[in-house]
Amino acid sequence: MQEKLDQLKLILGEIADLNHASSVLSWDQQVNMPPGGAEARGQALATLGTITHKKFTSPETGKLLDELKREAENLDTDSPEYRLIKVTARDFDKSTRVPAEFVAESAQVATMANQAWAEARKNNDFGHFLPHLEKVIDLTRRYVTFFPPAAHPYDTMLDDYEPGMTTAEVQSIFSTLRTEQVALIKAIAERPQVDDSCLRQHFPEQAQLKFGEEVITAFGYDWKRGHQGKAPHPFCTSFGIDDVRITTRVDENFFNTMLFGTMHETGHALYDQGIGHTWERTPLASGASTAIHESQSRLWENLVGRSLPFWQKYFPRLQEIFPQQLGATGLDTFYKAINKVQPSYIRVEADEATYSLHIMLRLELEIAMLEGKIELKDLPQIWNAKMDEYLGVTPPNDAQGVLQDIHWSWGLFGYFPTYALGNLVSAQLWEKFLTLNPELPDQIRQGDFSSLLSWLRVKIHQYGRKYEPQELVERVTKSRITPEPYIRYLKTKYSEIYGL
Amino acid sequence: MQEKLDQLKLILGEIADLNHASSVLSWDQQVNMPPGGAEARGQALATLGTITHKKFTSPETGKLLDELKREAENLDTDSPEYRLIKVTARDFDKSTRVPAEFVAESAQVATMANQAWAEARKNNDFGHFLPHLEKVIDLTRRYVTFFPPAAHPYDTMLDDYEPGMTTAEVQSIFSTLRTEQVALIKAIAERPQVDDSCLRQHFPEQAQLKFGEEVITAFGYDWKRGHQGKAPHPFCTSFGIDDVRITTRVDENFFNTMLFGTMHETGHALYDQGIGHTWERTPLASGASTAIHESQSRLWENLVGRSLPFWQKYFPRLQEIFPQQLGATGLDTFYKAINKVQPSYIRVEADEATYSLHIMLRLELEIAMLEGKIELKDLPQIWNAKMDEYLGVTPPNDAQGVLQDIHWSWGLFGYFPTYALGNLVSAQLWEKFLTLNPELPDQIRQGDFSSLLSWLRVKIHQYGRKYEPQELVERVTKSRITPEPYIRYLKTKYSEIYGL
Repeated sequence: MQEKLDQLKLILGEIADLNHASSVLSWDQQVNMPPGGAEARGQALATLGTITHKKFTSPETGKLLDELKREAENLDTDSPEYRLIKVTARDFDKSTRVPAEFVAESAQVATMANQAWAEARKNNDFGHFLPHLEKVIDLTRRYVTFFPPAAHPYDTMLDDYEPGMTTAEVQSIFSTLRTEQVALIKAIAERPQVDDSCLRQHFPEQAQLKFGEEVITAFGYDWKRGHQGKAPHPFCTSFGIDDVRITTRVDENFFNTMLFGTMHETGHALYDQGIGHTWERTPLASGASTAIHESQSRLWENLVGRSLPFWQKYFPRLQEIFPQQLGATGLDTFYKAINKVQPSYIRVEADEATYSLHIMLRLELEIAMLEGKIELKDLPQIWNAKMDEYLGVTPPNDAQGVLQDIHWSWGLFGYFPTYALGNLVSAQLWEKFLTLNPELPDQIRQGDFSSLLSWLRVKIHQYGRKYEPQELVERVTKSRITPEPYIRYLKTKYSEIYGL
Repeated sequence: MQEKLDQLKLILGEIADLNHASSVLSWDQQVNMPPGGAEARGQALATLGTITHKKFTSPETGKLLDELKREAENLDTDSPEYRLIKVTARDFDKSTRVPAEFVAESAQVATMANQAWAEARKNNDFGHFLPHLEKVIDLTRRYVTFFPPAAHPYDTMLDDYEPGMTTAEVQSIFSTLRTEQVALIKAIAERPQVDDSCLRQHFPEQAQLKFGEEVITAFGYDWKRGHQGKAPHPFCTSFGIDDVRITTRVDENFFNTMLFGTMHETGHALYDQGIGHTWERTPLASGASTAIHESQSRLWENLVGRSLPFWQKYFPRLQEIFPQQLGATGLDTFYKAINKVQPSYIRVEADEATYSLHIMLRLELEIAMLEGKIELKDLPQIWNAKMDEYLGVTPPNDAQGVLQDIHWSWGLFGYFPTYALGNLVSAQLWEKFLTLNPELPDQIRQGDFSSLLSWLRVKIHQYGRKYEPQELVERVTKSRITPEPYIRYLKTKYSEIYGL
């Protein structure tokens, strides 16, 4: 068995190397590449993708995995070997079920749909995107047919991002969450509103970046195994456990953009830097799922970064850096400003109290589209009605409504829910750790994040993809993913801020 | 035939994509990579290298090339198709002659030799490097045996960098050059020496970089298809014709380092940006040879960048940027300072008048080593004796003598001569263009480099590797590579500066 396992690891190592290369090319594309480089870069990425896919789905890999799966029956199901075989076999199964021609067709449709979407959004013309969306939905329905029948066709989509999770489960979670969040924002709307003008001043770029670096260094971002670049869209990327990069963008006229974006990406990066070296150069050297990854970014951005204890430590330092802008602002004013609740049209600008509602709306529409329960042409009206119902606002146009996100044009169905699930898991982990370490707020007030990071390292990060998301959350919190901790967190926080 | 040619281009395109990826990984390694990323990067580069080599040397490529070579006999020998087949077949022949085990053994020996060399240089201990150098020489001799017998075994080594050039030819060129250069620096040594203290002041980094950018923009570096990074060693790298990058380093206490290094790399970059798109994604999308590439970097660095007309234009601008440092310095003083001749131990710090002598010394030793005419243990003594003979200086230790260069530890025999040949070609092209466009100095005095760049584009750059170096130089100057123009250039320039 060891020999076969070594053979498998050799193949997986080469695939990891090829993925490493693709990731570096993508990073460079967004951070350094001049416009002239786009065409050759696209070709190079396509070639790498094809070679990687061929290598992974080769009959040789299939045969090895078949044999190893049989032999793995005698292994401890918690052993790294067992999990390596299991997760890799699952990936292999997914990669080989979908015919190459279908993948090519999907890529072509997505390219066209993405272009049409960009134009449609620019011209505020949903009709221009509609025929492409129809094709995307059609492909999504066909995609589902390549997999064993599930309780709901959306299960297949969800499984690509949250292995083992079902649509019914997510719907049940969201149903509780929705009622509570809608009630919360109604209650907030009735209170005096927060003034966030202190954030809307001129904050020079270099000083912002310096402060951001101080903060994420304190969080525990390891610069010897990391690097920060500038890019139009902030993201985190890993070229292996020991080279995990983040990018940052800066708005000199709005304080939140740089700092909370950087904290968010650092949350992702701390996860990737914390994965155990056992998994290096295997498919398990990444996060358990999209939602678990998001739980880490949200935890550092919101639970830590938008907390009062954090700013009790860091606001004086911020005032030192921006004496003119913030010297006369009180901590309380600043803390409320960065936590201002304001129902808005745009998901990516949403605050903690409203964010998940944007997601629920999208999930409901995705399911309805997949089931064929709505006419696609009615999508804008349905979108706007739901926005009014959940958030009390109606988008002035489709560009700020149904056309705002890129995801559907790419055929990314099943992805949206992970954003909200990430919020839930962040609070669930946080609540658990507070029961084990009630001194956490005091530690944060001292600028000491080490107990939190150590705990996450041990309980979450080190495992990579060893456990499925629900399994992992249950191991740590003795409960599957549940909305209650997040609801408690929101209620407590906003009751204080808005005097509910 | 077209079908087979298309098949070949498909394979070559994929290989170009893989090389593109390797180049991006190497660039990132030197510009952005954190230290922790080194191990995974090494593995990724090794995997890409293996895949690329396998793909290129596959029987499929061999069969295609054999068939195409036969069919190419009917083609115009100047057609792109004929040249593509010819150059690719030459590369294929070289890549397949050397057994894979030998390549692996060489890589292993080089890794060890390189490590030993670094230690030996640090501890000034040639004896520590000696056994490794013996192995390297042994491998080099074995390498030669894989190729058809040549007039001289060194021909095989040289051919890897200067296709078609012979050792006898280089020796004959250098023999003329040596006599003249030795005489020149002796004459200079008898004259009053130049004071270059104006260059050894504090020049803040940002201002230096700004000036460098202004200069290379004026040269014609296309930023839409380029990018400048910072790295410990300046270099130029091409990811394709439309993404050609340079790196720069800055010494705040010595003016020359940043500017002339940047001009040098820009010379390489202008070549790579100027290659015709016909050659994109083929092995012909790079320079004709190492020497021809070097001719472009030297031309912009020295013939343009260290010329009086250039500084008649740019010195006032430089004084504007560094008023404290250079406001009181005269143009004449500055011009002489940047052209100061000072025989020294270290090749990479050598001036134009002495540089090629460092190279000749190395060529003579390489040939003698390959022929077995010297005992390797005597190398330090022979080195020092030649340094005294050619340059009139004796290195105080081996670290500043025979151990100064990395090349031999890597097994790079045959590379050194290309540096000096590059100098010769730069002057040969320059002299030719001056006969066609005697207004060139006036144009440079106006900061107008466009006629020069256009001419180089048309005569050199566009062809990529279509022509062998001697063929290319002969097409442009009606003469093979010859030392006379460079000797005339040096004599004229230094007669003025030193009043010979």
